Amino acid sequence: LNEFALIRRYFKRDGDDAASVPLGIGDDCALLELAAGHQLAVSTDTLVDGRHFLTDVDPATLGHKSLAVNLSDLAAMGATPLACLLALTLPVERARDDRWMSAFSDGFLSLSERFGCPLVGGDTTQGPLTIGVTVLGRVVAGAALRRDGAKVGDDIHVSGTLGDAAWALDALLRPPGDADAIAMRDRLERPEPRVALGQSLLGQASAAIDVSDGLAGDLAHLCTASAVGAIIHLDRLPMSEGLGRIDRAIAVRHALAGGDDYELCFTAASRQRAAIDALAQDSGVRITRIGEVTAGTGIVWHCDGREITLGLDGFDHFR
Amino acid sequence: LNEFALIRRYFKRDGDDAASVPLGIGDDCALLELAAGHQLAVSTDTLVDGRHFLTDVDPATLGHKSLAVNLSDLAAMGATPLACLLALTLPVERARDDRWMSAFSDGFLSLSERFGCPLVGGDTTQGPLTIGVTVLGRVVAGAALRRDGAKVGDDIHVSGTLGDAAWALDALLRPPGDADAIAMRDRLERPEPRVALGQSLLGQASAAIDVSDGLAGDLAHLCTASAVGAIIHLDRLPMSEGLGRIDRAIAVRHALAGGDDYELCFTAASRQRAAIDALAQDSGVRITRIGEVTAGTGIVWHCDGREITLGLDGFDHFR
Repeated sequence: LNEFALIRRYFKRDGDDAASVPLGIGDDCALLELAAGHQLAVSTDTLVDGRHFLTDVDPATLGHKSLAVNLSDLAAMGATPLACLLALTLPVERARDDRWMSAFSDGFLSLSERFGCPLVGGDTTQGPLTIGVTVLGRVVAGAALRRDGAKVGDDIHVSGTLGDAAWALDALLRPPGDADAIAMRDRLERPEPRVALGQSLLGQASAAIDVSDGLAGDLAHLCTASAVGAIIHLDRLPMSEGLGRIDRAIAVRHALAGGDDYELCFTAASRQRAAIDALAQDSGVRITRIGEVTAGTGIVWHCDGREITLGLDGFDHFR
Repeated sequence: LNEFALIRRYFKRDGDDAASVPLGIGDDCALLELAAGHQLAVSTDTLVDGRHFLTDVDPATLGHKSLAVNLSDLAAMGATPLACLLALTLPVERARDDRWMSAFSDGFLSLSERFGCPLVGGDTTQGPLTIGVTVLGRVVAGAALRRDGAKVGDDIHVSGTLGDAAWALDALLRPPGDADAIAMRDRLERPEPRVALGQSLLGQASAAIDVSDGLAGDLAHLCTASAVGAIIHLDRLPMSEGLGRIDRAIAVRHALAGGDDYELCFTAASRQRAAIDALAQDSGVRITRIGEVTAGTGIVWHCDGREITLGLDGFDHFR
């Protein structure tokens, strides 16, 4: 396993000469420029074999997802991608599998190119398959969408639809799964980070978080950071047509606690409603107002106008 | 394994309020300020259980080393540490081992505090023990020490002594090892990154690299990047007193190919000799001139004024 040969062969592309990257792969560090008046946004996320993906996952989708989940963190800050680093720990048989390596790097680098986020460094080591990605972005100083800016009375919005990735995973793990669920496989394996949406929310949203562990948990983090509570109207949760057709208790569970959505949940003053509607129109990304920020603590769930309790043992009250 | 609780408990310290870090641990991204006129230097390195450390290694030294090897990459660019991120993949029994977790985080955060390199983000996941660290630093635009700046006729210098870490590892792997070697254990487990030295070489060195895989391999990378060759005088290799006493062939092998030295190898015009001597005096770090840059390719090894061949099968010509 020759680290240098692997990087040159699979991860170094001609034309890696972004103006913001005076020095890319191949030195002790990469060097980056940061435009004046900007702050650097940085995040790291690890994907572990058997926990974050199935061992036999298509390597191209794995490469895509490894970067996508990190770009989603930049999206949640409203940051513009600048560069990424890849720390790839590989069993030796993977490193020697040209088809696997080529597909993985293609999946990774396609997304990297599409989002103007060149790979500027990294590391390959031998060991159990573990993929660590660090992303760097820029955001105008003081403008980033943080978790701690939600104000009492703000609306709560979420992009796209929720629960499809968890629904697809469920079907894949229990063959033969629901064909409608398996059709959602791309939502699980090839999430689309909401980078443009995050940037267009700068100056409009008061707080934001990406929905990676399920809306219930992630919104709770936002509420804690902002020292506020929330009311969420479960009948407004945006779901795909397919998910909307299945058992309602299961669908809501996927939408709230499934994870892997990589949508943005954000808060905004109610006077921004028209602007946010316009933004949804312009971007082509569905945005749904699902609740409001309260002076309480924690999340209160409403359904058809009545408060309900979501037990830890599931969502059986929907049945 | 609750990621958020682990991070709060072990890795978040009060007083994490460096002026360069407007937002640290706890959001989708950290936010960093970069001083005007500077570039960002960034690098990532992974340590894998059983490859980069022994499973029963003292967790405090493991925490130290995980950050130290990354700071060494900043040192090699002449960069000033700004912040770091930690991606920690842990077996569940480690995550629940309070003594292990506390010692690991103490080792990591002590070095982080000493070098003004606050932990601003990261990730904990369950899986085989793998430690991924990303470091960020700043360096005056255009001033960084790169690998590709060596000029024909430049001197080649190296800091500290070489081979001690490999000598100690050898002794630890084959008990009962040489007591003098085991006394060098700290050189293996608690390397001291040459951060201040790297910064003071800005404007003086023409190229630099950190010696992590052994001088022979790392200097070859520098030569390739600079499109030059090198002559190295083996009789000038700086060795500790202890290593200087053992079998010469073994000692030279440790010094050239052992790895884990985390010293700096750098080139500088010969007119800089007095300045570099003064710098060694001021910093208290030994600096040894071991060779010169040539118009050739690859490294030519000299011993007592004569060219010799170092075979791949070892260094038996020294016997």
